[in-house]
Amino acid sequence: MNDCTFCKIVAGRLPSYRVLEDEHTVAFLDIAPASRGHTLVVPREHAPDVWAISEATHAHVAGMVRRVSALVKAALAPDGVNIVHSTGEAAWQEVFHFHTHVVPRWHGDDLRLMWSSQPAQDQELEQTLELVAAAR
Amino acid sequence: MNDCTFCKIVAGRLPSYRVLEDEHTVAFLDIAPASRGHTLVVPREHAPDVWAISEATHAHVAGMVRRVSALVKAALAPDGVNIVHSTGEAAWQEVFHFHTHVVPRWHGDDLRLMWSSQPAQDQELEQTLELVAAAR
Repeated sequence: MNDCTFCKIVAGRLPSYRVLEDEHTVAFLDIAPASRGHTLVVPREHAPDVWAISEATHAHVAGMVRRVSALVKAALAPDGVNIVHSTGEAAWQEVFHFHTHVVPRWHGDDLRLMWSSQPAQDQELEQTLELVAAAR
Repeated sequence: MNDCTFCKIVAGRLPSYRVLEDEHTVAFLDIAPASRGHTLVVPREHAPDVWAISEATHAHVAGMVRRVSALVKAALAPDGVNIVHSTGEAAWQEVFHFHTHVVPRWHGDDLRLMWSSQPAQDQELEQTLELVAAAR
């Protein structure tokens, strides 16, 4: 993908702060970090999102996400970590090469990530489950 | 884990709206959903967080997360999906049994999930990379 920013980073045609890499994935620092050590994990093979990525490639990314989570703990001693993926503009995906964010967290940091939610009615959940069961 | 809510759900000692399950994982609707179809994926084997979970168990969860993402697309036709995991109270983890959220998204929904961020200085990124490299 000639015009894909993350393909360029994978190929070394754009610079990046590489944290870890292996045969299938590259992990590099987000240059607009939500927190210190905020890292992106991408597959070397281009796939736009979770609906298009192969099972094998997705598994490779997940393995690297776990490794990076351990590495940032060892390096930066955070109190926690958020792991976040977005598929689709509606979910705020901005670069259409599959990527997962590993975001170290500290008590008292001012990062706003969680949604507001409230308990659902049983009927609503049952209706949703019916739709899901029909698509299974 | 007798007192773990998600262990109880896995064992069927608490009710849940099950979406999918396999030998290693269970996926069920979040009863306080951020959006319609908001699903949690948990391993049957108890592990508190990404720093404690085994590589194999983490891989099983990741595979189910991908399957659930495809299923909610087929069932509910969302425009996107967010996949979110929290490790540690600092990252808003509330149930200390590893779980990943699959959150369907629609254009114009009012879900607030992303962090605010701004470009980092090169020096800051280089310092972080040095710490990470030293821990590698």
